[in-house]
Amino acid sequence: MTSSDTAPSSLVLSVDAMGGDEGPAPIVAGLARFLAKNAGAHVLLHGPEAELKPLIEKRKITKSVTIVDAPDVVAMTDKPSHVMRHGKSTSMWSAIESVRAKDASVCVSCGNTGALMAVSMIRLRKAEGVNRPAIACLWPSRNAAGFNVMLDAGADIRADEEDLLTYALMGASYARNGLGLAHPRVGLLNVGVEEHKGRAELKVAHDMIAKAAPRGDFDYVGFVEGGDLPSARVDVIVTDGFTGNVALKTGEGTANFISESLRAAFKATPFSRIAALLAATSLGRLKKKIDPRRVNGGVFLGLNGTVIKSHGSADATGVEAALVLAAQLGRSGFSDKLAARVASAAVLAQDGENDATDQNGANDKDEKNT
Amino acid sequence: MTSSDTAPSSLVLSVDAMGGDEGPAPIVAGLARFLAKNAGAHVLLHGPEAELKPLIEKRKITKSVTIVDAPDVVAMTDKPSHVMRHGKSTSMWSAIESVRAKDASVCVSCGNTGALMAVSMIRLRKAEGVNRPAIACLWPSRNAAGFNVMLDAGADIRADEEDLLTYALMGASYARNGLGLAHPRVGLLNVGVEEHKGRAELKVAHDMIAKAAPRGDFDYVGFVEGGDLPSARVDVIVTDGFTGNVALKTGEGTANFISESLRAAFKATPFSRIAALLAATSLGRLKKKIDPRRVNGGVFLGLNGTVIKSHGSADATGVEAALVLAAQLGRSGFSDKLAARVASAAVLAQDGENDATDQNGANDKDEKNT
Repeated sequence: MTSSDTAPSSLVLSVDAMGGDEGPAPIVAGLARFLAKNAGAHVLLHGPEAELKPLIEKRKITKSVTIVDAPDVVAMTDKPSHVMRHGKSTSMWSAIESVRAKDASVCVSCGNTGALMAVSMIRLRKAEGVNRPAIACLWPSRNAAGFNVMLDAGADIRADEEDLLTYALMGASYARNGLGLAHPRVGLLNVGVEEHKGRAELKVAHDMIAKAAPRGDFDYVGFVEGGDLPSARVDVIVTDGFTGNVALKTGEGTANFISESLRAAFKATPFSRIAALLAATSLGRLKKKIDPRRVNGGVFLGLNGTVIKSHGSADATGVEAALVLAAQLGRSGFSDKLAARVASAAVLAQDGENDATDQNGANDKDEKNT
Repeated sequence: MTSSDTAPSSLVLSVDAMGGDEGPAPIVAGLARFLAKNAGAHVLLHGPEAELKPLIEKRKITKSVTIVDAPDVVAMTDKPSHVMRHGKSTSMWSAIESVRAKDASVCVSCGNTGALMAVSMIRLRKAEGVNRPAIACLWPSRNAAGFNVMLDAGADIRADEEDLLTYALMGASYARNGLGLAHPRVGLLNVGVEEHKGRAELKVAHDMIAKAAPRGDFDYVGFVEGGDLPSARVDVIVTDGFTGNVALKTGEGTANFISESLRAAFKATPFSRIAALLAATSLGRLKKKIDPRRVNGGVFLGLNGTVIKSHGSADATGVEAALVLAAQLGRSGFSDKLAARVASAAVLAQDGENDATDQNGANDKDEKNT
């Protein structure tokens, strides 16, 4: 459980080529873009070899890609329980297996979220001290990094106070390794910022997270509200998976509604059509800022290994974004650092506060150096 | 509990002049705008007479306004429990009292939400068959009406399956009377549209609402997701007050973030500054469409009387919007219709389904005629 020698000398990623809405073509296209900018990386690409071989030859990336033949595909409609029992020959299973065997540091899949989480759970197993793994997503924000982290975005519909504390620790570790924030600010999502508000488990979690903040090497800013998701006063927003999933889809739905309305406004009159041309560059920059494809990649946290869920409908840009995130996390040795962070918190909780150990201090320093 | 003779011959509204962030001036300004377009309406305006008199004289609306002197003001920081015990001399209390005494049909206040709900609860009391009252808000949407209804937006942080059924009935009644939809479509907010997803109480509520739909005179579309809040496939979205509050603030926060970014994009280059001028009309129309001030007014549902909570920061435009909504609900005799609707559902639930009564059929017809 040390975290000093974890950064792999060379980066290997495991990619599920199948299971996206459009089949393997956009995944291989995104992979080619990624490899063009990451010459040192190697990718294990999982799927039917006969189908994948011509695609990677066409993209001229055969040297950086090893195809791992897996004949079957998990469909979006497959039930997670079915995949868990009968999915051993699928590309998704095979992609996760490479991380389990430590042949690759991070797995990326565009497939069925429920199945991906279920197979990740049974093959990678929960990390020590984690009761409920979570999905962390990036949220466009006013912060310098351009993003905040929110978790759980929907791995589990429930979370008690212990889970929320674990989410705070995992989210802070992800912000350090994924966004490069040395000392992230963590907030707990509630219906108001006042201490007396909200559900009972939130009040307990509030106190537990505040207490854990100094050793967890993050600032706790207290309760935050839905309006703070894009805010510059917090970096990591902690909530249960039901609320997080509704918030995520509400934010995406609102952004889509406004974009649609904006497009319609620019087509409304001849003047506005000219305006659209004149403002094209600036609006393009704005579009890029809030483009959901740029934040593509929900990260499963709390397993023995890192798995990134890309949108099923991701195009080459979206797949590239998920791979860039995977590379960042793989290079930082994130999986082992997160495990060490949560495990030391679990040990602390068992031993009681006054047994504060040097081990924990050492972990803190390791994380700061990422 | 009949609902045939409820529409008041002349409209009287009760308005709390105090408690908004900017004091009574924007409230009186919004009132003047409203009265200019609603000549027949009369308003009972609650607050310190000495302060209000010059304001309504300045606006030349003394004929349509009766000042009800109330010396004290509920502050935004006052705890609801404190206001419940010591708030009898406040303008908020006085404004609610006018609805209780049936001197006015609807109460509008910009004050402290918690206090307004607490005083409304103890003075107006819950309607028969309602366990938890709810706050319904309007959500800008792709529907022809331009809005969907969402409830509960934050009256109570919990809701069980019975409450969710009551919310469906109340939300449908509100959509009929507030938005003029004869046969609203109701959806239940969840983390997926599949029947097996979500919390246990949601699955039970799903079946209960489906069963109640034919008699409740609405269509039940099943589970909806956060992305459906602005959708054209549903009119009324039902959820608990915790989730609803987070969703509402997330939607507002996202809209504000995009607006800010859009303004910055239009200032980025000389070209984009010219573009902003050229597109001004079209963008103005868009802004109006998604302007939160136009949807100003959370309605408390499930009490013996209707109370509208306007934003604390509402300006004249926002106050006017809340008054227009109040007038619409007052003229439709909404309070009595809602009470009849929920009470008949409660009677039905007690008697069992096969005792389906003519009484309920009669109520259906009344509601259809609004």
